[in-house]
Amino acid sequence: MKINENFLKLKDSYLFATVGAKTAAYKRAHPDREVIRLSIGDVTLPLAPVVIDAMHRAVDDMANRATFKGYAPDQTCYGYDRLLDSILDSYARKGVTLGKGDIFISDGAKSDCGNILDILSADNTVLVPDPVYPVYLDTNIMAGRKILFADANEGNGFLPMPDPNVRADIIYLCSPNNPTGAAYTKEQLKAWVGYALMQDALILYDAAYEYFVTDSSLARSIYQIEGAKNCAIEICSYSKTAGFTGVRCGYTIVPQELTRDGVSLNKLWARRQSTKFNGTSYITQMGAAAVFTEEGERQIGENIAYYRENARIISAGLDSLGIWYTGGKNSPYIWMKCPNGMGSWEFFDELLEKASVVGTPGCGFGKNGEGFFRLTAFNTHENTLEAMQRIAKLLKA
Amino acid sequence: MKINENFLKLKDSYLFATVGAKTAAYKRAHPDREVIRLSIGDVTLPLAPVVIDAMHRAVDDMANRATFKGYAPDQTCYGYDRLLDSILDSYARKGVTLGKGDIFISDGAKSDCGNILDILSADNTVLVPDPVYPVYLDTNIMAGRKILFADANEGNGFLPMPDPNVRADIIYLCSPNNPTGAAYTKEQLKAWVGYALMQDALILYDAAYEYFVTDSSLARSIYQIEGAKNCAIEICSYSKTAGFTGVRCGYTIVPQELTRDGVSLNKLWARRQSTKFNGTSYITQMGAAAVFTEEGERQIGENIAYYRENARIISAGLDSLGIWYTGGKNSPYIWMKCPNGMGSWEFFDELLEKASVVGTPGCGFGKNGEGFFRLTAFNTHENTLEAMQRIAKLLKA
Repeated sequence: MKINENFLKLKDSYLFATVGAKTAAYKRAHPDREVIRLSIGDVTLPLAPVVIDAMHRAVDDMANRATFKGYAPDQTCYGYDRLLDSILDSYARKGVTLGKGDIFISDGAKSDCGNILDILSADNTVLVPDPVYPVYLDTNIMAGRKILFADANEGNGFLPMPDPNVRADIIYLCSPNNPTGAAYTKEQLKAWVGYALMQDALILYDAAYEYFVTDSSLARSIYQIEGAKNCAIEICSYSKTAGFTGVRCGYTIVPQELTRDGVSLNKLWARRQSTKFNGTSYITQMGAAAVFTEEGERQIGENIAYYRENARIISAGLDSLGIWYTGGKNSPYIWMKCPNGMGSWEFFDELLEKASVVGTPGCGFGKNGEGFFRLTAFNTHENTLEAMQRIAKLLKA
Repeated sequence: MKINENFLKLKDSYLFATVGAKTAAYKRAHPDREVIRLSIGDVTLPLAPVVIDAMHRAVDDMANRATFKGYAPDQTCYGYDRLLDSILDSYARKGVTLGKGDIFISDGAKSDCGNILDILSADNTVLVPDPVYPVYLDTNIMAGRKILFADANEGNGFLPMPDPNVRADIIYLCSPNNPTGAAYTKEQLKAWVGYALMQDALILYDAAYEYFVTDSSLARSIYQIEGAKNCAIEICSYSKTAGFTGVRCGYTIVPQELTRDGVSLNKLWARRQSTKFNGTSYITQMGAAAVFTEEGERQIGENIAYYRENARIISAGLDSLGIWYTGGKNSPYIWMKCPNGMGSWEFFDELLEKASVVGTPGCGFGKNGEGFFRLTAFNTHENTLEAMQRIAKLLKA
């Protein structure tokens, strides 16, 4: 029996482990100091009341034979109508018309982001931005695909644009971006869609953070761009939209008009899902179906506004210090340039030692992340304010 | 962009679609007749009260900041300690000692059954039984692996044994079996473990139905066999054990001692899961953690006893008709030989037309299923009794 040797080519990421170990060592050495983590990548606010109520009702449904739910009604998209309809409605509000058959319910964006590759040949060239969410890279290394990088840097505001001289088959875009917080305008995405159509390439569009977008010139779905249904799959999540990181629900849009070599990618994905997946919890789906209702959107809007205020506090702090950054306005992430030409780890150590504040070194996301640093908006207002005061004090010293 | 062309080699299974269409047509033609489905592959009894209570409490945890749960505590096994400990306890009661690090929590056996192949080279030869749960076959066709079949038939009681002349790298075993209900004794599994160790092969052992086993000579886990930790991965599910088909929770055991080419398969699977999965709902996990408690086992035992009684009714009916079958005793499935030399579809039509009873034609599970027919124990006592009376009347006519 032979293992998949591509796994041996994976680099172990010690980024978060090293951040954790350094933070723990610091706490042991300075038990009296209050450490504030602006490195949190997880949500911290509880689920919205409409979601809680819907999930309690769904649990009760499972307690009685008459209302009990077994396998999901559809063995390809796995979605209950109530959830599918609410997703169609939410797209309609973004000006995008989808069909029910375009939607596949999943246990989260990360799963689909990896699993979607099952339907694509290993003999494709992949284009990923640098810096990048490591999942895009590692899932393709596992499958042995050739990988090219699109340089994101201060010059392009960490929003790389297509290079007509580069030939790619599969293109990853994430907007608003993790880790940089930078978000493409509709005009910029138009160029990517044009490039993909020209090259017969497929865009895998990660929209996990779209709910943080307020600026109407920015895209909230790639399908807001004409032609995208012929070249893009969009992967969406309730994790950051509605605090579902521990509940696990996402949805992936594979438009029925999306074909390659005369084959429907929608049908390929349906076949993949019917064979290698068995749906998302009924209870989870009923909770998710409450999110895009009128009252649901109001309630999750409050949570997102809370995180947005943290992002504003961080951005304002950096503005007053004259520090260059991306994100913060339409994203829970702030990607700042390390002050005084410091390296990512150098700044990490300085910030921890002198301000007891923890962030994430940008170099952990790719070579272009060196000299940059990620802060997140998922802590409390109080802690975020205190952290920015400490950073200001440190950098003005 | 090239698609994965292996998908084009998949055969579409029209088995359940055809069963559904024929049944619907019959109902339209005979609206007065009461059709009984002994083709149900899904559970029908509601969740146990301990599970319902645990899930309500978990939903409440998600409503408060202090008790809210985001991403799972461990980004490789994704299990909460309460659940992991309960699984270790349940194995201990089967006489199997595992370590916490051997267990990976999933959204169900079907997902893991397909996804586990990610860590194995496409250049392996796979041995699957015929007839077979289609997932084993299709997931390997998708990856382009060479597939061999182990013939299951009346001669071997639908329990094929290893053939030392056949060279295989990956071996699928499911016991008690879907679709045949046949279950291996520990002695028989010993031969499979010996064969796998000799050949350096890997057994993928599907234990989804182990809770239906009462006969102590039959295996409930492959790790009851010495040496299995060096050659087998076991895939388990709460679906049939505790009625979780709509809740989605399973667990996969990849023993830490399991290595190939000096590489730990446990570490490969951990890397796969940390990259392409993000865990199972906290609410689901808390429900599952209630299953293997003392009260939980008592309550799910009642549900399983209910299904077992249906299996007994079916078996007794077939016994009195002198019809050969496998399963029914330690399994919710009964795999009967079609009477009078009939083909699977021929018997399906006869049974539907003359007795208004629906089953599943065995030929849909592989060539060796021709002439056989699957009945299931998931209907009510009343319907099961009525169906068997109709079958007796039909066959004695």
